[in-house]
Amino acid sequence: MSIFTYNPVLASLVDASIERLAGEEELSASVIRAAVENGSMVLLGNPAHKNLRPILIGQPARVKVNANIGTSPLSGTLDCEIAKVRAALEAGADTVMDLSTGGDLTAIREDILAACPVPLGTVPVYAVAERYIREGKDPALFTTDELFGEIEKQAGQGVDYMTVHCGITREAAAWAADPKNRVLGIVSRGGAIHARRMREYGEENPLLEQFDRLLAIARQHNVTLSLGDALRPGAGQDAGDAAQWDEVIQLGKLAARALEYGVQCMIEGPGHVPLDQVEAQISCIKRLTRNAPLYVLGPLTTDCSPGYDHIAGAIGGAAAVRAGTDFLCYLTPAEHLTLPDAADVREGVMASRVAAQAGETSSPNPLVRARAKKREQAMSAARKRLDWAAMAQHALDPAVVAKRREPHASEEACAMCGSFCSVKMLRR
Amino acid sequence: MSIFTYNPVLASLVDASIERLAGEEELSASVIRAAVENGSMVLLGNPAHKNLRPILIGQPARVKVNANIGTSPLSGTLDCEIAKVRAALEAGADTVMDLSTGGDLTAIREDILAACPVPLGTVPVYAVAERYIREGKDPALFTTDELFGEIEKQAGQGVDYMTVHCGITREAAAWAADPKNRVLGIVSRGGAIHARRMREYGEENPLLEQFDRLLAIARQHNVTLSLGDALRPGAGQDAGDAAQWDEVIQLGKLAARALEYGVQCMIEGPGHVPLDQVEAQISCIKRLTRNAPLYVLGPLTTDCSPGYDHIAGAIGGAAAVRAGTDFLCYLTPAEHLTLPDAADVREGVMASRVAAQAGETSSPNPLVRARAKKREQAMSAARKRLDWAAMAQHALDPAVVAKRREPHASEEACAMCGSFCSVKMLRR
Repeated sequence: MSIFTYNPVLASLVDASIERLAGEEELSASVIRAAVENGSMVLLGNPAHKNLRPILIGQPARVKVNANIGTSPLSGTLDCEIAKVRAALEAGADTVMDLSTGGDLTAIREDILAACPVPLGTVPVYAVAERYIREGKDPALFTTDELFGEIEKQAGQGVDYMTVHCGITREAAAWAADPKNRVLGIVSRGGAIHARRMREYGEENPLLEQFDRLLAIARQHNVTLSLGDALRPGAGQDAGDAAQWDEVIQLGKLAARALEYGVQCMIEGPGHVPLDQVEAQISCIKRLTRNAPLYVLGPLTTDCSPGYDHIAGAIGGAAAVRAGTDFLCYLTPAEHLTLPDAADVREGVMASRVAAQAGETSSPNPLVRARAKKREQAMSAARKRLDWAAMAQHALDPAVVAKRREPHASEEACAMCGSFCSVKMLRR
Repeated sequence: MSIFTYNPVLASLVDASIERLAGEEELSASVIRAAVENGSMVLLGNPAHKNLRPILIGQPARVKVNANIGTSPLSGTLDCEIAKVRAALEAGADTVMDLSTGGDLTAIREDILAACPVPLGTVPVYAVAERYIREGKDPALFTTDELFGEIEKQAGQGVDYMTVHCGITREAAAWAADPKNRVLGIVSRGGAIHARRMREYGEENPLLEQFDRLLAIARQHNVTLSLGDALRPGAGQDAGDAAQWDEVIQLGKLAARALEYGVQCMIEGPGHVPLDQVEAQISCIKRLTRNAPLYVLGPLTTDCSPGYDHIAGAIGGAAAVRAGTDFLCYLTPAEHLTLPDAADVREGVMASRVAAQAGETSSPNPLVRARAKKREQAMSAARKRLDWAAMAQHALDPAVVAKRREPHASEEACAMCGSFCSVKMLRR
């Protein structure tokens, strides 16, 4: 019995898109089917999401990039968020997450789904907590039924993947929140809400205790579960501690259970991780989660770069992809400071795409590596010919080549070198 | 006999600045003196450069960042270049290189030196070639005396360090320029000029053959030689080939000769290098050059990121610093496309500073690592307190914290999270 037997929605989605996917990913259909069956690749796609082009995540499929958008209680409007979706798509984001926490969340989600031909992800607990905050109540006092009700509602709306913080236990949350153990406690917003709820109610995590209830909803709509890293390190110092690994172990067990049930899973990863720990973290997480697609936020390789966290994240992201990561969540220049605007979104997506390409050229997976190297080689050959059209074609952002060349577009050499062009200097 | 015996200019410069340097670098005077003596650290400073604050390059001194500025035959004016110097200094560049190749180069250099309290570097062969180009002649047909004359003139003007392509041999140049061997041949502009000269004249490299003549000029003015990587790979595919290593071996021998003579040297490094080769390249170069300060351009970890090469370079730069690199030459978003403007300079410097900090937190050198971690820890502690003034203080760019916080500066939490702030969520 395979995942396709238990999840007929997924089976028909694969049948409908396998030819396109095989072409786009330069992989055979049998490689894709086998990877989806063993849980190392997922096909993001909820049939209720109209005009969606489902995509694959998990190597040897191409490494994908996600852009987080969404309002906050202090900032952001629907128009603004739609502009950010457009900016993300133009910059080449493969997926978008609506992390809205302010305004009419249901309506915003509906409009973003309609504007978004790529898979959309959410964090359902935000909407539950937001109602409590709006009514002046403690956001952690929501009921289990309210949380599952929200998940079911969003699945019905067409959300393709959801961050669900299933792996945080009451004990690990208390340990991580204790200042004796961690400098920065719990930095995941969803993780902090769940931790507060467990503390206030003195109860275990409902998403962990009633995991099969979640699986039933997810399977019905082919919602991919993005098993959240509620206990990811929020400071380089906290990376790799007992709380982080306790959660990874839980997530590995849950991913195995989900696969048996016919539900697709991804694993969310760190976080703030010093550069020399990235490879070890990624390979251990992949091992503990049986090679489920790994979705990392950064990792941020320094804590001191507010305003430039897209770069600190690209450094970690490239190292993570080199070590086998499948999916990069971008960081923008606004991280740790404010809500990103459309320009930040663009910068963030491009930084992650550079990281993905740099990591893929050094990937341990020979298919991933060969595909990335082909692009590198085409670019280098174009440079040798001073063929600017071909350079634009192979560039991650073709438009920027034309734009920056524009004032000197009639010159064969670039405006940095002119008659000092090294290529021309040695032409015979 | 030590370098201080042969180079009294350096000896008195060290005496005059050792107290300040020890304080700034958080190192003892004896550690600094020993490192300068064994050639693993250099003190950049030409006494003719007025108002200069000499700086140290070479671990365990802090990793430094260089910004390249300068006109091109097609673009740039003196005002524009002075604005770029200011942008570089404001962004925290430790050194500046004037790579001008258009306009009155002597006058531009003089004005930049006057505007530049940090060490200034140049590539003297550019000025020699520029005169030939301006007169419609082959730029490679300069005489040996013209080249040494230019070097002497610039040393007299106060240039603190010079890129000199001493390690490229006639044989290696011919091999590298052959399309059978390399996709992108020789991409160093200075390297291409020397290669063309050797080809046209059928002669060996004068900087290699008359290296002692160079040393005499350098010692007189305490000009640090930055031994150029004329044969650095210009494509990921060309990384680590025979031509590159042949030059590194030459540079190692020349650096040893320079140290005996009393001249300070740095080694210039790659270039375009796939991420999985960066560590091996850096450690082999350091070994072959007896731990002389290593000054890398990037390395660029993908060829496909024009418009975002500062990010591809930051990825490689962080990996290089982690492997022991001492000095990062920035790349800007204009690389491979056009001459950078002041905004590009700012972005480039910041990207390299993020790379330096990320690399230093993972440095194999315990002194470097401990100093970097202290900053990381101070930032994380400030985040836990939601202490925005302290976050700005420990940030690589304090101004950006205030600027982006400004619309919501009265809020305790940031405008991304507001009432969803994870720190506040779990406060007791």
